[in-house]
Amino acid sequence: MFACRKFLKNHFVAIAAIGAVCIFSAFMPIRTNEAKSAHPLEVGIAGYTFAKFDLDKSIAMMKRLGVHYLSVKEIHLPLNSSQETIDAAMAKFKAADINVYTVGVIYMKTKEAVDLAFSYAKKCGVTMIVGVPNYDLLDYAEEKVKEYNIRLAIHNHGPEDALYPGPKDVYDRIKNRDARMGLCIDIGHATRAGYSADKAVKDFKDRLFDLHIKDVSIAAKDGKAIEIGRGVINFPALVKALNKIGYKGICSIEFEKDMTDPLAGIAESIGYFKGVAATEE
Amino acid sequence: MFACRKFLKNHFVAIAAIGAVCIFSAFMPIRTNEAKSAHPLEVGIAGYTFAKFDLDKSIAMMKRLGVHYLSVKEIHLPLNSSQETIDAAMAKFKAADINVYTVGVIYMKTKEAVDLAFSYAKKCGVTMIVGVPNYDLLDYAEEKVKEYNIRLAIHNHGPEDALYPGPKDVYDRIKNRDARMGLCIDIGHATRAGYSADKAVKDFKDRLFDLHIKDVSIAAKDGKAIEIGRGVINFPALVKALNKIGYKGICSIEFEKDMTDPLAGIAESIGYFKGVAATEE
Repeated sequence: MFACRKFLKNHFVAIAAIGAVCIFSAFMPIRTNEAKSAHPLEVGIAGYTFAKFDLDKSIAMMKRLGVHYLSVKEIHLPLNSSQETIDAAMAKFKAADINVYTVGVIYMKTKEAVDLAFSYAKKCGVTMIVGVPNYDLLDYAEEKVKEYNIRLAIHNHGPEDALYPGPKDVYDRIKNRDARMGLCIDIGHATRAGYSADKAVKDFKDRLFDLHIKDVSIAAKDGKAIEIGRGVINFPALVKALNKIGYKGICSIEFEKDMTDPLAGIAESIGYFKGVAATEE
Repeated sequence: MFACRKFLKNHFVAIAAIGAVCIFSAFMPIRTNEAKSAHPLEVGIAGYTFAKFDLDKSIAMMKRLGVHYLSVKEIHLPLNSSQETIDAAMAKFKAADINVYTVGVIYMKTKEAVDLAFSYAKKCGVTMIVGVPNYDLLDYAEEKVKEYNIRLAIHNHGPEDALYPGPKDVYDRIKNRDARMGLCIDIGHATRAGYSADKAVKDFKDRLFDLHIKDVSIAAKDGKAIEIGRGVINFPALVKALNKIGYKGICSIEFEKDMTDPLAGIAESIGYFKGVAATEE
């Protein structure tokens, strides 16, 4: 018995470790190619990507890229547009099978800018604004969220942004507000601000409304825009996190490199993201 | 000691099972975002992709795409080029950080064509030819493989090809020949010929030298070239198969859509493949 006890004692750690490995193995996801997520991740475009192109050229590029979701930027449809102008633009998008799911990024430095943003969003028929309200306008923006029943996803802009450098700077200011106030996490700027994309998605999942996806050359202030997959952001981890939280929003590419000739870079970025998403499903 | 023996006897199956699970676990790829395959899959370009462009424009596109491996097509460097012409082209590739890892696809319908292909490959300094020899030239081609010590990867061309519609049509004709005779599996044509890419890779792993990767709209003769990820080929399964067999060759994109304006489609294809590969590692 002594020998047996000794055997068990000597091997207890090993046996416990074996047990732990087995339990761990049982909980490891067994991925098959047939298993598809109930909510496959949808790719969109953040309108700023096409800052150097007019509406028609932007639509033509989206058609070629096979992308059907757009966050309209005021470059392509000014904030003070009439209902008729907006309707005409929306008809063009519809004809190209493009779903305008939000507007932005819209900066709100005055009450008038908040008013304009919500009235514009309503005219556009969207249920969400991606915006950057000054701190002292958050109360007023919250009133408008309730009045219009339009969600506000606040966008972070990186270390040089005095208001919202990273996603936590947004979250901390909206977490106790109306549930229709949340985040559009810009994963490139978040990474430059020291917040990894996958961690941000998990940490702020209850208020994550929209995503601007991109890659950056280094995880520091001086990080430059680069094709998705060529930079430092861990996309398999991001997609895993999005699947884990059951993200149902859009993943909008915001490509800020080669802006006068961006098609190849956007295409590579979309391809990479879709490839990761197809494999992580 | 008896009790101990009894314990061991009673628990032998359990311990053996634990052991088996542990051994199995040890061989299961534990994917972490840091862990990279010992042989990450390398993306290249099959020269035919740039059929509508000259050498300099092709190199410029490869630089932009960040691709460093090329299968040179005679469109860009004719088979009867002098050593000086070939050296000048190779210097251009080297300056652009492009590794010419093979030549082809070269059709061999006569003994002279076989001679020319091997002499060209030698002048190019490559150790592999991607080719399509007529059946009655296989003996002669095998002699040349031995004489030059240059591998010959035979390329399949789909249902309409009288010689090698699918990869099995290649394999059956070389499996008992010199080990330096093998396959360049064109996964698009293979799929159109009814042979799935992942199955082909596994079935012919012992003679798989090169890959032409692409996607097709349907798995039938009429399938059309399409951006990788938009068609029917299961790339997660393909990458899994390549990792399983420990493929150490190049995965060369052969993009045959939008051939006068292919950059966006190639970029999307490369992005998708890299995204899958990054996730399956």
